Amino acid sequence: MTTRQAVVARGLIMRTAERLYATHGFAAVSIRQIGEAAGQRNKSAVQYHFSGRDDLIKAILAEHAEAIERHRLALTAPDGEPGDRIHRFVLPRIEHHIDLGTPSWYGRFLAQVTVEPALREYAVQAHLNTPSLRGLRLDHGAAATRHRDMTRQLIVHMSAELEMELAREQPPPEMAAAAWRRLGADLVTAIGALQRA
Amino acid sequence: MTTRQAVVARGLIMRTAERLYATHGFAAVSIRQIGEAAGQRNKSAVQYHFSGRDDLIKAILAEHAEAIERHRLALTAPDGEPGDRIHRFVLPRIEHHIDLGTPSWYGRFLAQVTVEPALREYAVQAHLNTPSLRGLRLDHGAAATRHRDMTRQLIVHMSAELEMELAREQPPPEMAAAAWRRLGADLVTAIGALQRA
Repeated sequence: MTTRQAVVARGLIMRTAERLYATHGFAAVSIRQIGEAAGQRNKSAVQYHFSGRDDLIKAILAEHAEAIERHRLALTAPDGEPGDRIHRFVLPRIEHHIDLGTPSWYGRFLAQVTVEPALREYAVQAHLNTPSLRGLRLDHGAAATRHRDMTRQLIVHMSAELEMELAREQPPPEMAAAAWRRLGADLVTAIGALQRA
Repeated sequence: MTTRQAVVARGLIMRTAERLYATHGFAAVSIRQIGEAAGQRNKSAVQYHFSGRDDLIKAILAEHAEAIERHRLALTAPDGEPGDRIHRFVLPRIEHHIDLGTPSWYGRFLAQVTVEPALREYAVQAHLNTPSLRGLRLDHGAAATRHRDMTRQLIVHMSAELEMELAREQPPPEMAAAAWRRLGADLVTAIGALQRA
């Protein structure tokens, strides 16, 4: 297998896994089914490219985290007002979902990862421990931690719900983008209200 | 098997399943492992008492929903002010978690159910379609629906996180109860702030 073929196969396996996990759940999808659905003739193709399920899931997460990070770094607004921090936290994920188009699977995939005992700590770290978020200089203390936890839960699970709704209704791209932007605005409002409360 | 023995075995299987699912995730726990861990000698004991995984999970959910419903019916405060509705929505779940003690597994179990493709619709309905909540006469419209979705996500996932933290730290019962009441108060404040925003 050439390097190029390996890269293509890896990407195909990742996208197939994400779609199957999002629509059927981790419990209902085997590594072998992923290989078959990704058109890999070799029964151990997934194991060849990834050491196992968790490694495969982490690779999918990392790819999305990088794309979100690129959006966040492109937000050049100064980090002055408190509201700016919320925008910088929320909007890059919204823009990433718009890029993904409809149907997408990342939202539902991520929601499952965050409640999966073996993976949740990793998922939280992978999304918080990026250069752009370290730059936000997060506050410490019980109130700040609770606010941050609520913020994270709202973004992850509200995104998963909207994604599912859009996948079901298949609206034209501009309507889907508008629905994502509306969720983004609602999340910014909600997170701001939580912070003041 | 007498009726009494069957009831005992059913309860034992349900509690074992909940614990294993909460700590290892749906994907890592088989029906057979649940039977073994519940001390059932017959290899098809779980299938004998429940038709399958989803039926077992629904039975566990129903038992908790009933206990929460009892707490909610016991809250006799008049449903006059808007704040009362939020209390009636949140506090019965908090009281139920205090009843369960530490460690408990329901919070993490429920969080997994709500993102499991085959079960999430059922879970939402099972927790909303109770006499006490139908009595709350929920509002309609896009803003009310979004507020209700955010409320549900915050309650489910913040409870799962606190449960995990308590299971890890094993504080004395009165400290665990205080932590649950603090989360309840924070959720009431947060949900009130979301509603006004």
